[in-house]
Amino acid sequence: MKKISFDYNNTIGYIKEDNFKEMDSIVRDAHYKLNKDINYNGWLRWPSIIDYNEIKRIKDNASIIRNNSDVLVVIGIGGSYLGSKASIELFNDYFEDKKPLIIYAGNSLSASYLNRLIDFIKDKEVSINVISKSGDTTEITIAFSILRDFMESKYGRYASKRIYVTTGEKGTLRELAFKNKYETFTIPSNIGGRYSVLTAVGLLPMAVSNIDIDKVLKGANEAMNDYDNPDIMTNNCYQYAVSRNILYNNDKKIEALVNYEPKMYYLGEWWKQLFGESEGKDGKGIFPVTLTYSTDLHSLGQYVQDGERHLFETVLHLEEIDNDITLDNINDLLNGKRLSLVNNMAFKGVLTAHNNGGIPNLIINIPLLDEYYFGYLIYFFEKSCAISGYLLGVNPFDQPGVEAYKQHMLNNINESK
Amino acid sequence: MKKISFDYNNTIGYIKEDNFKEMDSIVRDAHYKLNKDINYNGWLRWPSIIDYNEIKRIKDNASIIRNNSDVLVVIGIGGSYLGSKASIELFNDYFEDKKPLIIYAGNSLSASYLNRLIDFIKDKEVSINVISKSGDTTEITIAFSILRDFMESKYGRYASKRIYVTTGEKGTLRELAFKNKYETFTIPSNIGGRYSVLTAVGLLPMAVSNIDIDKVLKGANEAMNDYDNPDIMTNNCYQYAVSRNILYNNDKKIEALVNYEPKMYYLGEWWKQLFGESEGKDGKGIFPVTLTYSTDLHSLGQYVQDGERHLFETVLHLEEIDNDITLDNINDLLNGKRLSLVNNMAFKGVLTAHNNGGIPNLIINIPLLDEYYFGYLIYFFEKSCAISGYLLGVNPFDQPGVEAYKQHMLNNINESK
Repeated sequence: MKKISFDYNNTIGYIKEDNFKEMDSIVRDAHYKLNKDINYNGWLRWPSIIDYNEIKRIKDNASIIRNNSDVLVVIGIGGSYLGSKASIELFNDYFEDKKPLIIYAGNSLSASYLNRLIDFIKDKEVSINVISKSGDTTEITIAFSILRDFMESKYGRYASKRIYVTTGEKGTLRELAFKNKYETFTIPSNIGGRYSVLTAVGLLPMAVSNIDIDKVLKGANEAMNDYDNPDIMTNNCYQYAVSRNILYNNDKKIEALVNYEPKMYYLGEWWKQLFGESEGKDGKGIFPVTLTYSTDLHSLGQYVQDGERHLFETVLHLEEIDNDITLDNINDLLNGKRLSLVNNMAFKGVLTAHNNGGIPNLIINIPLLDEYYFGYLIYFFEKSCAISGYLLGVNPFDQPGVEAYKQHMLNNINESK
Repeated sequence: MKKISFDYNNTIGYIKEDNFKEMDSIVRDAHYKLNKDINYNGWLRWPSIIDYNEIKRIKDNASIIRNNSDVLVVIGIGGSYLGSKASIELFNDYFEDKKPLIIYAGNSLSASYLNRLIDFIKDKEVSINVISKSGDTTEITIAFSILRDFMESKYGRYASKRIYVTTGEKGTLRELAFKNKYETFTIPSNIGGRYSVLTAVGLLPMAVSNIDIDKVLKGANEAMNDYDNPDIMTNNCYQYAVSRNILYNNDKKIEALVNYEPKMYYLGEWWKQLFGESEGKDGKGIFPVTLTYSTDLHSLGQYVQDGERHLFETVLHLEEIDNDITLDNINDLLNGKRLSLVNNMAFKGVLTAHNNGGIPNLIINIPLLDEYYFGYLIYFFEKSCAISGYLLGVNPFDQPGVEAYKQHMLNNINESK
């Protein structure tokens, strides 16, 4: 199988092979540190140790949901939904939704959203998958309470058969699930939310959406084997981590993840949480943004070309697409050309133009966007993020800053009427 | 009518009233410069000079499209679609599409997207609105040529009755429209793409989507009157421009436009183009990003709280929502509370937490999100952007950097087979 590859040859002199050599021993240290970080590195061997029976239980329940539901409402925020949403967007059609339709809730405190959601599903067959590792996130508690009331008034005592819980090894949500006999999936304590997409957190919604989760896990497993190697000179995943670090140390403080297929938007959102939450601490970290070209060339393209020189681009370059068009009736330049070629020439043209404008580019070449390469890419980013965090000198697995607003919010609610 | 207001009191000392006083004469200069910049400032008086007959023609044609079409395909990129998409997202339902469905094309070079689009519309009644000021943007030329072939093979000689063109005063697209007798709307030459949402560019798709365009224009007109005043001490729109400038000069090089209602996502995308393309030049400019809270608090919230201190937030704070929920059956803290109150307490909690973390906050208070305030807000941002660009010392109306990739792309296509 062709591999995902990494290309640092368009960084206008910022990154050379020698830079990698200089970082060799630091990268090896990070590699061994990650292997020993057992309270947080549960995702590291996960593709090889995930329980076959658990996968079967996920598929069996997904099959039940597909058979008896028009809608699956997934209640989750942050790492509890971005990964599954990314894959569902990638593998769904642009215009027609699969049945069951998967709708997300609990990822905002918008009353108008939740009100309309209830109204939209009231005459449909519904199942719910509530996902929270801690089990007490306010957004999730609120959305689940409203949707549980809805389910109980719609289905009575059968509601419990349509509620699926994905949560940590202990906590309020787990107790509630036990009491009500909800089907429950467990997030291992040593896998943090933003690293959890390959557990039931992501796999159950994916399986409901008819995504081949065996292929996803196979891709991740292959990446695990390919990147289990401390040698920076051959490990592409570590080269990406080191490249980011070098660019950051050269005052490139914004990284734009660029795609040329609009379906990849939520993959970028998942990536933003992974890197932003892992590295944005202690006054440090690259600020992650996503750009979809060519639409954003007609929006932020001007800035990237000519604005402040504090950013670099990482391009997700698809080598093959499965659904092409041959152009005709336009003009001599374009007639007879495939549209995928034009898109690829845009990619190359942008690379030249932005390099000329002083913007370093990293390129991740992806042979094809199927479930296998999706799983592979997920693991590529997870591992490079961990190594990148160590190189930066932060703990890539905590998120102490997320608590601050919660405490103020709860105090405010307590003091309000 | 209650006004949109601007609040700079949460900028942790970066901005004080005295700073505004110091900028008084510079702001007055910018104000007069803008009034004299007649090659570019066509949007400045537009809400008061837009032709009544033109509005009627827009409404009449929108009504025809609503009656004879299941789908309107809007072909546009950048400023040709972001404004109408923002309003259509704001005023449409979260879950159920209005008829006719409005689909965008020409904003990417994705063959799989375009292929699926054709397949999706083939058995539906379709109209097309192609929008391009220059008339020769490659993405638009390609998408329009494919969709025109589709229309001609579906409708034969009646295709021309279903194709609507919005373009500049001259150019290839205008000639084509004349030859084929397509209904044509004109973008005035002194209104640039990213300032064009209140012309037929935005108004025709909005009207098709049953948005009250009279109210939109009324809001913009009121904003025009409110902000036609060079006094920084009372002009909120100029205060926003000056505040951004002060923060930028204090090394706050990223501005995050924050909302608490997921429907406001594309309003943020429109804002990103407006400011990014107007200011990102000559090695300068604030990098604009958008955040939707609370979902992004569980994604980039960690970074905003604790990462590099190079950013500030501008919060779009909705004072009233029209569809609330009272909480029940949760816990003593939340029972009996309205969800909008919880969302508002999140807004205040985030403000305190991020201020404590060293992040200045600007707040734009919006009484209610209807067509009137949408139009008002559009004008608020357009005018503050122009002034902000002058303060930065750039031309806020050109986009020389957008050409660079196009030239390389066309050369690449020419050299390829």
